[in-house]
Amino acid sequence: MRVDHPVEMISEVVERKAEGHPDSLCDGISEAVSRALSKAYIKEHGSIQHHNVDKVGLVAGQSITKWGGGEITKPIRIIIAGRANYSIPVETIAIKAARDYIKQILPLSRDEYFIIEPMIGVGASELAGTVNGVVANDTSVGVGFSPFTPIEQLTLDISDYLVNDAVKEFPEIGKDIKVMGHKYKEEIDVTVALGFIDKYLSGINAYKKSKEEITEVLKHEFGIENISINTLDKYISKDNLFLTVIGTSAEQGDDGATGRGNRINGLITPTRPMSLEAACGKNPVSHVGKIYNVMARSIAERIYEETSKPAEVIIQSRIGHSITKPPLVLIRSDATKLDEIVISELEKLPEITQGFVEGKFRLF
Amino acid sequence: MRVDHPVEMISEVVERKAEGHPDSLCDGISEAVSRALSKAYIKEHGSIQHHNVDKVGLVAGQSITKWGGGEITKPIRIIIAGRANYSIPVETIAIKAARDYIKQILPLSRDEYFIIEPMIGVGASELAGTVNGVVANDTSVGVGFSPFTPIEQLTLDISDYLVNDAVKEFPEIGKDIKVMGHKYKEEIDVTVALGFIDKYLSGINAYKKSKEEITEVLKHEFGIENISINTLDKYISKDNLFLTVIGTSAEQGDDGATGRGNRINGLITPTRPMSLEAACGKNPVSHVGKIYNVMARSIAERIYEETSKPAEVIIQSRIGHSITKPPLVLIRSDATKLDEIVISELEKLPEITQGFVEGKFRLF
Amino acid sequence: MRVDHPVEMISEVVERKAEGHPDSLCDGISEAVSRALSKAYIKEHGSIQHHNVDKVGLVAGQSITKWGGGEITKPIRIIIAGRANYSIPVETIAIKAARDYIKQILPLSRDEYFIIEPMIGVGASELAGTVNGVVANDTSVGVGFSPFTPIEQLTLDISDYLVNDAVKEFPEIGKDIKVMGHKYKEEIDVTVALGFIDKYLSGINAYKKSKEEITEVLKHEFGIENISINTLDKYISKDNLFLTVIGTSAEQGDDGATGRGNRINGLITPTRPMSLEAACGKNPVSHVGKIYNVMARSIAERIYEETSKPAEVIIQSRIGHSITKPPLVLIRSDATKLDEIVISELEKLPEITQGFVEGKFRLF
Amino acid sequence: MRVDHPVEMISEVVERKAEGHPDSLCDGISEAVSRALSKAYIKEHGSIQHHNVDKVGLVAGQSITKWGGGEITKPIRIIIAGRANYSIPVETIAIKAARDYIKQILPLSRDEYFIIEPMIGVGASELAGTVNGVVANDTSVGVGFSPFTPIEQLTLDISDYLVNDAVKEFPEIGKDIKVMGHKYKEEIDVTVALGFIDKYLSGINAYKKSKEEITEVLKHEFGIENISINTLDKYISKDNLFLTVIGTSAEQGDDGATGRGNRINGLITPTRPMSLEAACGKNPVSHVGKIYNVMARSIAERIYEETSKPAEVIIQSRIGHSITKPPLVLIRSDATKLDEIVISELEKLPEITQGFVEGKFRLF
Repeated sequence: MRVDHPVEMISEVVERKAEGHPDSLCDGISEAVSRALSKAYIKEHGSIQHHNVDKVGLVAGQSITKWGGGEITKPIRIIIAGRANYSIPVETIAIKAARDYIKQILPLSRDEYFIIEPMIGVGASELAGTVNGVVANDTSVGVGFSPFTPIEQLTLDISDYLVNDAVKEFPEIGKDIKVMGHKYKEEIDVTVALGFIDKYLSGINAYKKSKEEITEVLKHEFGIENISINTLDKYISKDNLFLTVIGTSAEQGDDGATGRGNRINGLITPTRPMSLEAACGKNPVSHVGKIYNVMARSIAERIYEETSKPAEVIIQSRIGHSITKPPLVLIRSDATKLDEIVISELEKLPEITQGFVEGKFRLF
Repeated sequence: MRVDHPVEMISEVVERKAEGHPDSLCDGISEAVSRALSKAYIKEHGSIQHHNVDKVGLVAGQSITKWGGGEITKPIRIIIAGRANYSIPVETIAIKAARDYIKQILPLSRDEYFIIEPMIGVGASELAGTVNGVVANDTSVGVGFSPFTPIEQLTLDISDYLVNDAVKEFPEIGKDIKVMGHKYKEEIDVTVALGFIDKYLSGINAYKKSKEEITEVLKHEFGIENISINTLDKYISKDNLFLTVIGTSAEQGDDGATGRGNRINGLITPTRPMSLEAACGKNPVSHVGKIYNVMARSIAERIYEETSKPAEVIIQSRIGHSITKPPLVLIRSDATKLDEIVISELEKLPEITQGFVEGKFRLF
Repeated sequence: MRVDHPVEMISEVVERKAEGHPDSLCDGISEAVSRALSKAYIKEHGSIQHHNVDKVGLVAGQSITKWGGGEITKPIRIIIAGRANYSIPVETIAIKAARDYIKQILPLSRDEYFIIEPMIGVGASELAGTVNGVVANDTSVGVGFSPFTPIEQLTLDISDYLVNDAVKEFPEIGKDIKVMGHKYKEEIDVTVALGFIDKYLSGINAYKKSKEEITEVLKHEFGIENISINTLDKYISKDNLFLTVIGTSAEQGDDGATGRGNRINGLITPTRPMSLEAACGKNPVSHVGKIYNVMARSIAERIYEETSKPAEVIIQSRIGHSITKPPLVLIRSDATKLDEIVISELEKLPEITQGFVEGKFRLF
Repeated sequence: MRVDHPVEMISEVVERKAEGHPDSLCDGISEAVSRALSKAYIKEHGSIQHHNVDKVGLVAGQSITKWGGGEITKPIRIIIAGRANYSIPVETIAIKAARDYIKQILPLSRDEYFIIEPMIGVGASELAGTVNGVVANDTSVGVGFSPFTPIEQLTLDISDYLVNDAVKEFPEIGKDIKVMGHKYKEEIDVTVALGFIDKYLSGINAYKKSKEEITEVLKHEFGIENISINTLDKYISKDNLFLTVIGTSAEQGDDGATGRGNRINGLITPTRPMSLEAACGKNPVSHVGKIYNVMARSIAERIYEETSKPAEVIIQSRIGHSITKPPLVLIRSDATKLDEIVISELEKLPEITQGFVEGKFRLF
């Protein structure tokens, strides 16, 4: 374990893509498939077998919006690429998991709006062997930090609030939302791109009114002034607005891919340490690209809880090494006596694996 | 423009995936297709039209290695997802560009080893309109820094040296290489995962000998001691070695995707600012996810050249804003009088676009 | 119009593939999609637009049968190839029509058991223009005859009886049935290949008992002695029986394609005139490969009704000719004064088109 | 063996689709893949293993013709569906065989004009076992007759002459040709649909001149008067002509499928006995749908050779029966003493299998 001092954040740029963004849809499907496979492996074998389905691609469809409800004119294609042990019906499980997940995130979707295409191969023999032992299957890096800065917390909270709470009052809020927060010194500024759902809106005026009301609600709820929604809107025709049929830009022209959006803390933070590993879809037993990201976050959170000192944590694996003994743990923190925290967290591997299967962690 | 002070790097983790890594193959194909489309648009229209092919996916094949030369038993599938203006034969151009690129990177490949499948749709009407003006087509962030730290430079150089120079003496060096460098205080350590090509090796001993010789060459060339290649090797059978038929793990079980590997400086640097945007495959006229990454790097490089002060630069776009007037430029540097550099670099947009078409910049 | 004398049938070989056979599934899906598109065109435009979806392919899945109910382990892939006018949401309509049809024929199927993949292009401009006028869009041949010989009628009736009636008492009867009838002089012999459904059977004995009972029912119902079911069965293990999970061999290894099975009278009759045109899926306004087959059958039936003389009818189109004035009508019959019948039937084109849309005709 | 009297042919309709027709392309690719697999199995195992690749589908591309040479703007997709024993690299062999075959038939094609997509599964265990013994793997029917009637011979000869001979003088003759012959009593009439290649033509006049010259050549060569080429042509613009870039309508709007065109004698003869089995692509060891068609033809030919009496032959298999002892052979002929011929031909199975591998037989 090696310790650095933390970085002071004066200027920040933070981004979040909510659940209905094409990249987030891919993240969510990857993880839904991994969880479904994990459960099926446990049922069949008593333990999770090798799989990695962290390469979901989304090829956008086409839609024609209409006040009161438009239609999808070309289906969205979901390609589930990856590897798995084929001792269970991998492809049918994957299709079902993906469809169920889509239905949950995009309740207005219909079966014929999505083509789900599994392209899941069998794994390389060498790697396939590593899932039962806790041996790293790749050379990679997990990253976590705690606590969030105020703008980070705000960016995440606004996204979650829109998707989970505001939608109750404003059913026209689609789940494809991109929140960008920036801060320079004390100055804070939030931009929201929000895909409205045409079914719940009667025309341009209704759209405009809804947008204004949602903006007011956000200002009030979060106590900020500089917040704007869909700045590109021109109130000329519906084609100049961010309007959708089922609540995602994937329906019209925006492709997506697993691992191209939020990191496991739910944010994209270019000014903070980030891992490029896509956690979603990786097997939760041996894939360090998944496990070490969550572990690094846990360690950082625990350091902060116990010491009130911010921490950034990087854990590096080496292929073939025991997962519980990573060759490198870097910590940037002013806290001291970190050894015990790190060691005890690293030993929680089985709990983490179980937590993935149960869907306990935010992963995107 | 806003200015911070730079971060001191005590501990570092740096990674590079060379050209034959599945993720890098996707990056390279994305960019090769974008360049081919750009040239065809210029030929047809005099100017580049809307396109984004930054979502290439690679579904691994299967191979059976054999000393002296094995075979690919299941083809590798390349899915080229994205959007383009269909006033030119987008799909045939994309297939040809991808095949030519693959042939260049993997000279032992054969036509029947790769299935190339374009899934390129037409773009959303709204976005399609933005390519002719220099108006940002997304809300995103470009990041660059200069100079490299010694370990960053070393990681990149080792990868390039293996692929471009060492291969002349050691034809068994495949292009699927992953170099990981770590540094803590003065201590440096490099791990290399290198896919050897079976055709040029007669057996386990030849493999072992080659590996040892290459290790020695690297130690000598770069003046470092702590360097190891393929640490997981067990000299029992060829199945325990990192052995390939055409020089990439994509031939046997490793999937890939654009934007999941190196950043545009050729490295993955979790402890440094990074953009999550995939530059490769994006259109070079209006896609800020591509342009601002290169611009941020140019600004940082120029600051360092002119002031000898390190710089990290973040440029943020806002959808609908003029590209040459980004709403936010963050700079972490101790340099002063940066305005002129920033402004003059931002005005170089046309040169940068042209540079992309000509393939002048490293992008992954 | 030209008239021959009819052929006397001494020896006959007749075959029928019931609705759940992979080839018939493709026929049925082709036609279901054509009907759904036709209805959507009428709703949108007031008239049917150009389309031909007569190239559905089925790539078999994999299944594991189990007494009491097995599972599909690899989904069945349905590729809907063809052409259509894209003024309506062709692909989503096609997917929905295919799914609804599958659900109707294979009620035990689940969404995740089938991947439906439309590959429907836009039509050649020249041909696309021919749908509004009643001008032939191809050079092809329609064939019909009446009446059925006894063995032809028997082959068809046994298939229909099993699928529609016997199944009420024997739910284990799957819809993948192949009936082959042969006759030489007075001797008649029927062979049935019948895919049983594992869900409704408790073991080999139950399978054997069911088969024997169904055989007896058929003997009694149709008054024949020489009839056998699944002659290849060996009562050793379930793997030697024709056992299925959802009632079709498409679930395990048997691919299918539109136009490769029954002719529009429901039969394959190598000793009788046959058209090779696939009627299913072709547009019902201008595609002579569809219309002339039904017309030829209608003419033959009417000749037989009015004269009690058997008739075989062949109608040939020529591309560009008016559909109601085919360049060649060949009739093999001893009946006379056929002109009036032929002319009046040829004028029924609009009724026939409407009949296709309503699903009034047997087409496979 | 059972014998009928033959049918007298007063009126006839005969059709042939030449090698470049989309359906014929699929036939040819199916057979090329089967032959390549057969050879690879023999090399690997000493004997041919189970495979059936008789379900090739072609999804048309798009092209823009231009006098002097146009371009393919959307690639043609070839889907190779079927089953095979995976002890050899089935998919790469299939892709290579398909590409080589396409190059041979369509020399102007380029790699990027065709996407080749193998969807070849493993076979059902039960059927997979039957390939080594000579046991029928299906219940099906093979049909053959001899001799050709004059109009049948003429239809075939014109097609072959255009593709093999006339093309030397007229390089603008594409291989997508459809010849329809009809005869009523002594009257004969031939219609040809011929896809011209734009590269070798300078304009409408050149096209018209070429067509007229080819018509004259055919009249002279075959001594017939009633022959016409591309009757739908309007000399207004190239869009009203049958013009192509690489010589097949598959490049623009015409899909194809194995088994939907010519029978194994090269013709479609609705007034003659026909098998619906697709011979192309089936395994040449045990698939009666392939073998019995060739055997039936051989028997008919030998009857005619030895007795000068025309013969039509139908051979029926039953699943599980020895191939050399079919349960039913129907012969329509006035010849006598047929037993010996039939028995000796049935014993030639190994020669026939070998003949398929060597490509000795016309199969479409």
